[in-house]
Formats: sequence, C-alpha cells, structure tokens
Amino acid sequence: MNKKLAHTKNELENLSLNELENLALRLREKIIQVVSKNGGHLSSNLGVVELSIAMHLVFDATKNPFIFDVSHQSYPHKLLSGRKNFDTLRQFGGMSGYTKPDEGDFFIAGHSSTSISLALGVCKAIKLKQEDKIPVVLIGDGALSAGMAYEALNELGDRKYPCVIILNDNEMSISKPIGAISKHLSSVMATQTYQKFKKRIEKILEFLPDSAAYMAKRFEEGFKLLAPGFLFEELGLEYIGPIDGHNFKELINALKQAKIMQKPCVIHAQTTKGKGYAPAEGKHAKWHGVTAFDIDSGKSVKKGVVRKSATELFTQNLLALAQKYENIVGVTAAMPSGTGLERLIEEYPDRFWDVAIAEQHAVTSMAAMAKEGFKPFIAIYSTFLQRAYDQIIHDCAIMNLNVVFAIDRAGIVGEDGETHQGAFDVSFLACIPNLTLLAPRDEKMMENIMIYAYHHQGVLAFRYPRGAFILDDEFMPCKIELAKAQCLIENQSQIAFLGYGQGVGKAKQVLDLLCEEEPDFANLIDLIFIKPLDEKLLKKLAQRTKIWFVFSQNAKIGGVANLLNAFLQENDLNIKIISFEYEDQFITHGNTNEVEKSLGLDTQSLARRVKTHVID
Amino acid sequence: MNKKLAHTKNELENLSLNELENLALRLREKIIQVVSKNGGHLSSNLGVVELSIAMHLVFDATKNPFIFDVSHQSYPHKLLSGRKNFDTLRQFGGMSGYTKPDEGDFFIAGHSSTSISLALGVCKAIKLKQEDKIPVVLIGDGALSAGMAYEALNELGDRKYPCVIILNDNEMSISKPIGAISKHLSSVMATQTYQKFKKRIEKILEFLPDSAAYMAKRFEEGFKLLAPGFLFEELGLEYIGPIDGHNFKELINALKQAKIMQKPCVIHAQTTKGKGYAPAEGKHAKWHGVTAFDIDSGKSVKKGVVRKSATELFTQNLLALAQKYENIVGVTAAMPSGTGLERLIEEYPDRFWDVAIAEQHAVTSMAAMAKEGFKPFIAIYSTFLQRAYDQIIHDCAIMNLNVVFAIDRAGIVGEDGETHQGAFDVSFLACIPNLTLLAPRDEKMMENIMIYAYHHQGVLAFRYPRGAFILDDEFMPCKIELAKAQCLIENQSQIAFLGYGQGVGKAKQVLDLLCEEEPDFANLIDLIFIKPLDEKLLKKLAQRTKIWFVFSQNAKIGGVANLLNAFLQENDLNIKIISFEYEDQFITHGNTNEVEKSLGLDTQSLARRVKTHVID
Repeated sequence: MNKKLAHTKNELENLSLNELENLALRLREKIIQVVSKNGGHLSSNLGVVELSIAMHLVFDATKNPFIFDVSHQSYPHKLLSGRKNFDTLRQFGGMSGYTKPDEGDFFIAGHSSTSISLALGVCKAIKLKQEDKIPVVLIGDGALSAGMAYEALNELGDRKYPCVIILNDNEMSISKPIGAISKHLSSVMATQTYQKFKKRIEKILEFLPDSAAYMAKRFEEGFKLLAPGFLFEELGLEYIGPIDGHNFKELINALKQAKIMQKPCVIHAQTTKGKGYAPAEGKHAKWHGVTAFDIDSGKSVKKGVVRKSATELFTQNLLALAQKYENIVGVTAAMPSGTGLERLIEEYPDRFWDVAIAEQHAVTSMAAMAKEGFKPFIAIYSTFLQRAYDQIIHDCAIMNLNVVFAIDRAGIVGEDGETHQGAFDVSFLACIPNLTLLAPRDEKMMENIMIYAYHHQGVLAFRYPRGAFILDDEFMPCKIELAKAQCLIENQSQIAFLGYGQGVGKAKQVLDLLCEEEPDFANLIDLIFIKPLDEKLLKKLAQRTKIWFVFSQNAKIGGVANLLNAFLQENDLNIKIISFEYEDQFITHGNTNEVEKSLGLDTQSLARRVKTHVID
Repeated sequence: MNKKLAHTKNELENLSLNELENLALRLREKIIQVVSKNGGHLSSNLGVVELSIAMHLVFDATKNPFIFDVSHQSYPHKLLSGRKNFDTLRQFGGMSGYTKPDEGDFFIAGHSSTSISLALGVCKAIKLKQEDKIPVVLIGDGALSAGMAYEALNELGDRKYPCVIILNDNEMSISKPIGAISKHLSSVMATQTYQKFKKRIEKILEFLPDSAAYMAKRFEEGFKLLAPGFLFEELGLEYIGPIDGHNFKELINALKQAKIMQKPCVIHAQTTKGKGYAPAEGKHAKWHGVTAFDIDSGKSVKKGVVRKSATELFTQNLLALAQKYENIVGVTAAMPSGTGLERLIEEYPDRFWDVAIAEQHAVTSMAAMAKEGFKPFIAIYSTFLQRAYDQIIHDCAIMNLNVVFAIDRAGIVGEDGETHQGAFDVSFLACIPNLTLLAPRDEKMMENIMIYAYHHQGVLAFRYPRGAFILDDEFMPCKIELAKAQCLIENQSQIAFLGYGQGVGKAKQVLDLLCEEEPDFANLIDLIFIKPLDEKLLKKLAQRTKIWFVFSQNAKIGGVANLLNAFLQENDLNIKIISFEYEDQFITHGNTNEVEKSLGLDTQSLARRVKTHVID
C-alpha cells in the first residue's frame, strides 16, 4: 500500500474510493500524531480531510488559488501539497499552523472571514488576465457571522464571478454557533423532510388541472426558498447542498458541478468536527485549538505546576465584580473560552454575551449599553481588537463612554505567530483622545486594576499577556489611582528600568541577572499607566537618573518608549531612553522563549544589551 | 396657521392629516433654506420628513432612543425636537450636522452602519432595567451593505429583542447602490405584480380539492418568501412593507403595528431622496452633501476662483497612470465622487470598483489582486480607513503586498466635525511593519508621489487634505526617492521648520509671516517620507540647528514629531522639538479656518507660538 501523503491532482484521480478513504485515514493519523506533540488545531482539521482531498482531486492546487478562511483547517491541504516539514508544525523555524505564501500557500490567514474578499480579488484578476483558473474557498459556518464575509458576498452575488465557496458546516465555529445565520443553516434537516413531502404532493398534482400544475411549479419554488441555500441564492449565488462532507462521491460530484458552472457557487458541506478521533469527535471548543496531549487518553500533557493565567485571573476578578455590581455587563466575539468570559456567560446569561465573530458589533453594542448606564467589559484579544478600531474611536471615545477594554494576548503569543501577536495595541490606542491605558504586572495588580476599571469614568483599556504573569506578587501592590506609577525598587543608581504590564516582570528578571554582578544596578518603576503618564514621578526620576530602559511588549513605533520620549521633550528633560520593545517587523511563530531569544528579548540577551549601553 | 416646527408626540397626535402635510412642507422649507446657506446633507433629509414626523408621532422621542444611522438624515428630527440653533447648522460653535448627545440626541453617528448594533445594546439595557421603551432605528438601504449592520442583524434575529428598524429605501445610499442586497430590495415591484397574480389564483383554488387547498397555503408561503422582506424574516426579524415612506397613514400604521409587536421588526419604507425640492428630487450623489447653493437655480454658490482640490488631482493623476500601466486597479467604498474614483470607474469599469460601504472587503479584495500581480490604489478617507485597520495589517502588510492607500481628507475636514476629522492615520499606520508613509505638499509633488507609489514595492500610504494644497508649486519639485526629504529653504538659522504634507504649506505661511520681521528666520524642510525617515538629511540638519518646529495635520500622539523624537533619541541627537500637531482631543465641526484658530493652529497663532519658544 502506498504510504505517501502528498498527491497531485492526477494521482488522486487515479485512486479508487478505497484508496481515497485510506489516504484520509493516514492524513488523520499524521495530523493527530503531530498535533498531539506540538499542539495546534485538531478538530477543525480532522473535519475537513475528505473535503481537502476532494478539493485537490477536482482542482489543481498548483494552479487554482486555494483560500482557507482563518486557515484553522489547512493541515490536510498542507500534507496533500507535500510540505516536508509538517512535523515542525508551529515550532520556531518550522511550518506555520496557518496558510502562508512563503510555504507555498496562496495567502496568509489567521483572522477570520477574509476568504470571500480574497476570492473576489482573485476573480477580478482572473477576468482581467483572462486566465483559466478559479478560486476555491473553504470557509466554516462560524466565519459567516463576521460582517466582512457578508460585504464580500454582497459584491460577489452582484458581479457573479465564477468562484467556488465550500461552506464547511460543522455547526460549531470555535465555540457554540451564535446568531441567526447558524439557525438558518441548521434548518437543513427540516428541509429534507419537506422535500420528501413535496415529492409526494407532486405525484398527487399530476392528476390535477393545469392551473394547479402551474401552482405545483410555484410551490416547488416556494420550497426551494425554504432550503438553507436560499439565503445565498437570494444574494445571487448558486447553491449546492447540503451534502455529506465526509462522502467522497458527494463531494467530488458537487465540486465538479461547481467547477463548470461559470458562476459563484456555494457548496454546503456538513462535517463532523474532530472526525476520526473519538475523544474529539463532535466536541465543541475543547478540541479546537489544543496543547500537546496523550493520544490514547486524550488528556492534555501539562508540564509541572502552572500558575494561573492572566485570562483565568480576568475571569475570577470579573466574577467577583459582577456579583458586587449589577451594572457590569460584558461581551466576547466568539472567544468565550479564549477570553475566559465563558464562566460569566454561564453565570449571568442576561449580562454577558457571545455575539459571534463580530468585533465591530460587539464594541458598538456595548457602547450603547454604556450610554444606558451599564459598565461593559469588552474582552478581545489584542490582535482582534484591530478589527474594531473605528468602533473604539467613533462609538466609544468621542462620547467618552464608560467602557472597559480587557485586552488579552498582549505581546508575543507564541505558536500562532504573525497573525496573532498582540504587538500594536499600545500604538493604535494611545492616539485616541479620552482613552486611559494601563496594564497589570502581576495577579494582585490585575485585581486592583479591574476594580479601578470599574470605577473609572471614560474609556479605559488594560492589556495582559497570554499565560501567567512573570511576577508572583513579590512587590507590594499599590492602590490604583489615575496616572499614578509605582516605584518598586529605589536606589542611588542613575539607571532606571521602566516596565509596563508584563514588561515589569521582564525588567525584574533582567535586573536580577545584572544585580548578581552589581547590586543596586538600577531603579525599577512600574508605569502602571501609560496614558496619562505619572508626570510627577517621572520628573523626579529624571532628576536623579540619566538612562531609562523601557520594557514593554509592544511595537517600538508608537510604543511606551515613544510616549515617554514625547513627555521628556515637552518637559525639556534630557534622558537617554533605550526601548526594548519590538522592532519594526512582524514576529514569527514558535515557542515564546525561542521567539524572544531570536529577537534579543530574552532575559540574557536583554541583560547583555543593557550592559552595552551602560558601558558607552 | 401654526408656524412652529418643534412638536411633542402629543401635539403631533392632535394634528389633522392636512396639518401634518403642512408641517412636512415647512420642515422642508426650513431645511432647504438653511442648507442652501450653510451647506450640508440635503436630499437625504428631504427624503425622510414624513418618516421623521411619523416617528415622533408614534414614539415619544424624549423617552425612546431614536437612532439615526450615519445621521445624514437627522435634520427633520432635530427640528421636530426643538433645536434652537438650527440656523447655525455645521457652523463653528453651532449645531452639528450629525446627531450628538450634547445636543440631546441619543448617540453620535457620522460613520455608517452602527445603528443596529446600538439598538442591540439598548435592547439589552432595556431588558435588564425592565424599562418600557424601545429603540427606533432609521437606516438607509446603503448602510445595509456594511458588514457591521449584518453582524448586528445576526444577533438581533437570534435574540429577538423588541426593536423597530425603519429601512429607508431610496435605492441610493450616497451614490448608486451596489451589491446583491440592493438588488434584493428593488425586487419589490416584481413582487407586487406577483401578489396581484396570487390573489387571482387563490380565487380559482377555492374550487379545487383539499390537497390543492393545502397547496394554496404553501403557495402563499412561497410567495411571501419572494418578497424583499424574506431576507429579514430568514434572519429572524418581522417585516412590514414595502410601504410608501411619504404617506403618513401608511407610516403611522406600520409604526404602530411594530410598536406593539414585542419583536424586532423591519419596516421597509420607500422614499424619494430630495423629495420636495425639484432640482434634488431623485438625484443621486450630487445632492447628497452640498455646499451653499442658490435655491431657485439649484446652482452652487462658489467663492471666487478655486484651485484644484487634492481629490481632483488624485483623479487626474490616476487617470494618466491607469492609461499607462494596465495593471493598475482601484477601489472605493461607496465614495466614488468623494474620493474622485468616479471618473476611473466610468473610464475603466473592469479595473475600478465601488464595492459599497465595505471598507474591510475593499482592502482585502485588493490585497488579493496585488498578490495576483495588480497594483491596487485604494482610495479611502482617513477617518473611514479606521474601519479597515485589521485588513491593512493582516491582509496587506504581513505579506508586504504592493498596495497603495490613497488617504483623502487627512487633517481637519471642517463642517463634518468630530466623526470625520482625519486626525489619526499617521499614528495608527506608522506602527505597522512594511508600511511606507509619505505625503505631497503641492500639486506637482502629488503627481510625483503617485508615480512613485506605482513603482514602489510594498505597502504604501500617502495622505492629502480636503480641498486644495496651500502651496502653489512655488518650490522646485523633486524626484521622489525612498526616504528622501527635501530642504526647501536653507539658511544660517538654527531653527528648522519641518513639514509633512499640507503641513509644509502651513509651515511656509508661518515662515513668511515671521520673515517679515526677521528674514531667514528658519530653514524649511519637506519631510516627504515619515516612514522611513531621511536619516542622512535629518542628522545633518541636527548638526546645524537647535530647535525643530513640526507642522503636520495629525494627532500629536504617535504623530510626526513623535517619530522624529524617536529618531533623535536613537541617534543621541539633542534637539528641541515643538509639535504643532493636534492635541489629545476630538476636534469639533465648523469652518476649517475657525476650527484651526480655536486650536491655535492658524497661521497667526502659530507664528506667535513659534516666537514664545524662540524667545525662551
């Protein structure tokens, strides 16, 4: 038996149904094996194995752009197209867990719902270049909840470019599906019943007069409209389905039909998430993105005792606050488990909501609640907050509403890589008037900041890292007051380390290392607020120090050091500032420590870098 | 006859149909009179006069949140609710042209498609507070093309909160309607024909056997599905319509029906844009937003000879480039006339597109075209580019695609005010890796920069102001080279004026004023690029000058001076920098000169401010 996973279109065409099924089996084995070691997206990939094979069989992947929405489901495609380094999945220097042009994919994808827009662009290009190819999109039902997908459908249905959109309907998205569209899609079963019924009625109608025969035709149309495809048809797209997304025959037929249609066509394929791996099959969020696990038991392989993650602290503190203050409400955009809002939604279903992949709507609907006297906590990852940028400005900040942005995954997030790093939030938020920006350094401060956030008047955003804080409450926490920083270590040194959020922990680690050689190497300041800054403390600090090292997990441009610089300029203070923030480049995937090392941002490198500046 | 315009619900209820129509007439007169003087949104407001009266008659505006999408159509509402200062419409210190809570409106709106999200937030608040009120939304058909509206409908249809959404269908939006949804809505007429036909068939069916009677019922359902409301019904919303949006009886009945429904309901009202003012009636973009005009002739009142606007130059240059280079394509998000892309769409309908109010989709679809070898010019106003922030990062910059962002309306835009100022683009773009940022100072440089932009590899964004450049090609243009600034005036002064884009013109004006007293007051540098900076030129400049004044039309935070500051810090250069950019506040509406004066950013104030720093 052939053991290889990579296959050309031609090779796939020559496989028997049995061989195709065997290939599916082997792809699943490989995926389970590698993901169990490296972590990654499991159930979404297991669900699209047959789909991916069918795509490669009907369309030449070397010619036609394959567009994977959010690309949580691109592993089978990567294996089929012969990536040599699948075993290095998500590792530093290894294969990306998402589609990536460097690796031979058509386009990068890590954020949801961009695929149909991409297809539109390709369609226009094909038309202009008069090329003989067609974009093939694989998009999950969850991704359809984002407005961007709809913006693209709206144009596609109007212009009617040939295009194949495979709707991978596993009734799940990352978490439970939300919204009317999901309900719409799941009306499928009801429709099938109707269709049987319709056939029977048609038989009867054969014996009726002409006017009734006409009726029958209209009637049939009426039924057609009841099918889930109607929504697409109404938008001007052809619709095939629903089909069994694990049945090769159905898949191949549907794809072949769509291929020659010369119109935009949605193929509605129903799949089971986690298919082929019993512990994951049909499960919701739990098996979507996983860390390393034991294949037999399905249990996560945890390394030692892990402190509470910032996300867990967020949940814990928000639960306490929500219990105390009835006007607290909150929202997540399809990341209830990722952001930790899940517990709140369970506990207070009338006050906390998952509004699906809809960051824009999430922010603006909460702005209205703030206007009505509620205090919304909007929990969104740093990278996804980019999707609601205008809503922060236009709907929250102009009116200076009492809204709290809880920005999770700030800084380097590790294996998810470029599309997921939380590198820009300080830069894009600091310029917005009425916004207050702060960040906790450790568990206790996280609690204090959240209490402060509740009482703060105006728009407030606080950021916190993926995983646990570096610091373990080793410094005395302080009460949070607007624009008050905290001096954690004060000494005679003319050097100051200024940290923001997790940057304080990093600064402390570097300082510990340097203090081994030279005690009292530097002062240590937790800025706590970067907008507004603690002008009084900073002015004092400027009087007794000469060089400031800034530790923050954000881009240099527009980052914390830049904000401090502007403050120094305005106040005619002459201090040398060295920023240890991110250089002007996108940051690759891999284990966070390795990534930091490659950027010279690990503790050792930072200590070395400090020394070169001090010796100067 | 009562002449007043403001009316309470109670007062309106007691008016006869005749009196209501008379009120509508007087509202229109007032709107035409004020807009003909102050400029503003004309046709959209004239179209919703009866609608607004009906809203105020059925719902108590002092109790129920009235939510005007984008609020281009809120003048009748403002008059009905008794704003004293309607004559000061859009003037500095006067009434805003948009809804504004300070003035008694529920929410701010100047960007499209936020209304349904706001309504959702209100619904959730009402439910929690158990209040007896209901949000009343007025949204145009154009606003439905933005994904955000759909994100909100998706949640609303699922949760089914009571809510009234009036769909003001004038088949227009600002410009021609784009997309499948528009087509869907305009299927109304066809539907009406069907409905008549249906009635006839039903008569026939009365004489048929039972099975056929059942059929008739199904048949009716089938037809219902054909109506434009089906899309909403399918999303879980009730639907009333289409109704005549100028017919009080129909409007009041529909609103009363929706009011007691206890469900989310869409009222589909068909209106004529510009209704009641012959020159504007039924016209597209031309009468949407207007400058002062003569009421009788409908002709614009232009003041003296006006130089070409930057937008016109954009069109002119892009036409020339598009003719020369076949791979240039371009997109606008529902602003063909505003951005000047209209001419290109006319000339090259296969290469330039209006994709409706869909900034996210606009950017990402063009990113795909860039991947396919095309060179897209994406023309979006600075303030609306905020709506595609993630798409710039995730879909353009990570892959460093050859995409050009033509950012119109950078800086203060005048009468449109807070929601429209182009104040943040430098700050939110500079932090994105792979992005090149530059700006023209005058007509010739606009041309040179656009030629350069075509040839540049990677993501590039250039910004230009509303209206004409201050400078009239009085300096020798230079060839654009990456990271090359231009010294326009070089002398022995230790002062340097550094300008960016229109800031160069402003710097020159200030310099001219100061040179009256002291010739050779300062050097003048056009930065041209702010990312990357011209390090060589700046280093030299730093050697021979002591103080830099920075003129740029962007927020101070993250703006040009901050970028220069960071450069100076990194290079251990000690220069005093004074930024004349925008302070950390939202900028109000009014004539640009008056607004600048109020901010101390007019030429006289700036000259004075320079002197205070130099005397120090």
